[in-house]
Amino acid sequence: MSERIPVEKKILSENDRIAASLRERFAESGTLVLNCISSPGSGKTLLLERTLERLPRTMRTAVLTGDIQTDNDARRLARYGFPVQQITTGGACHLDARMVAKALENWPGPDPDLLLIENVGNLVCPTSYDLGELCKVVILSVTEGEDKPLKYPGAFRRSRLMILNKIDLLPYVPFDCERARANAESIHPAIETLHTSALTGAGMEEWVRWVIGKVKTPEASVVARG
Amino acid sequence: MSERIPVEKKILSENDRIAASLRERFAESGTLVLNCISSPGSGKTLLLERTLERLPRTMRTAVLTGDIQTDNDARRLARYGFPVQQITTGGACHLDARMVAKALENWPGPDPDLLLIENVGNLVCPTSYDLGELCKVVILSVTEGEDKPLKYPGAFRRSRLMILNKIDLLPYVPFDCERARANAESIHPAIETLHTSALTGAGMEEWVRWVIGKVKTPEASVVARG
Repeated sequence: MSERIPVEKKILSENDRIAASLRERFAESGTLVLNCISSPGSGKTLLLERTLERLPRTMRTAVLTGDIQTDNDARRLARYGFPVQQITTGGACHLDARMVAKALENWPGPDPDLLLIENVGNLVCPTSYDLGELCKVVILSVTEGEDKPLKYPGAFRRSRLMILNKIDLLPYVPFDCERARANAESIHPAIETLHTSALTGAGMEEWVRWVIGKVKTPEASVVARG
Repeated sequence: MSERIPVEKKILSENDRIAASLRERFAESGTLVLNCISSPGSGKTLLLERTLERLPRTMRTAVLTGDIQTDNDARRLARYGFPVQQITTGGACHLDARMVAKALENWPGPDPDLLLIENVGNLVCPTSYDLGELCKVVILSVTEGEDKPLKYPGAFRRSRLMILNKIDLLPYVPFDCERARANAESIHPAIETLHTSALTGAGMEEWVRWVIGKVKTPEASVVARG
């Protein structure tokens, strides 16, 4: 499809322009932005729910959640007392920077300390769209197989952190955490790995510490590209 | 992204033209084509492996498997003695009709009775690309949550069959098969549902009967649009 490539390039450079201006905005407001990417059903929403429960109330936190169709996730996430905004993409398979900029247009009050973005459940397309985040976080459920970093390298190459989620299911599935980690590191040697079960709470404290550490470091307020 | 829509329409109509000619070809050769769609890690490849094991040797079967990067799946599937061809999309998030037509160009011998297509692991984008198949089959792992038909309606609206896979994990995950089925039927009332565990073999006989039934009916050799 020869005609597709230049148009996608144009769209991506338009996206990069908006993402750069978002990144500048977040640097000024000192907002840490994490762009969470995974397959459908990796447990992203439950992980974010359990994260919101554990965050200090003094940390001004907000959530943007992308979905093709429903606002189920936004309703789940809104129960924790932090502002949540749904972006319904109406068929699009990823969030883009324009959608994020638009969602922030009518945001009440100043930009938060922490903005968690839950991307559309898709391990492929969201990877290509910079949303002005500090970094991407890829969530891989242990039910999905440890070969996924090799099969979907983009998401792992561009993420600073891989969360291996649903570790409560490890006794019941053929999944080798060490092999998953080695596969991810073969794609992206500097990628960090955490193990969590949002269902049982295992590993959640460590992940929350990771997030809080990022909010507190000055790194959050420099123009960095994840 | 106003400029994207007409180009995507053009790409889709070009895809539809190629798919229509593939469908005509498959009708002439009496080839049943199933386009299998799911998230990454739903167990598609293992399901196809266990399917190939169970198919009668007299049924001429072939597999096309799509992947962004590796040929892991093709190597796994090739062990069963049926011809398998890998389509590495090199970044593209779905198979399209042109890729299928190209893969069939150098196919050895006449077209098979059954062509199983394993699409790229992505519950969104592959849905929009007709590959000339008789029908789409959507595979949903019970670890993914019963809300997925509502959140990714396209895949369920366009599939004739939903396979709920990994039912061996039902005791360990919060998943209600009846609710998943009701959600799928609210999107597509005529969708059929089967329950399988490719790991334990549960439900596999019923699925293989479903496939063989479709190969044997004359439906496979009429020009039908799934």
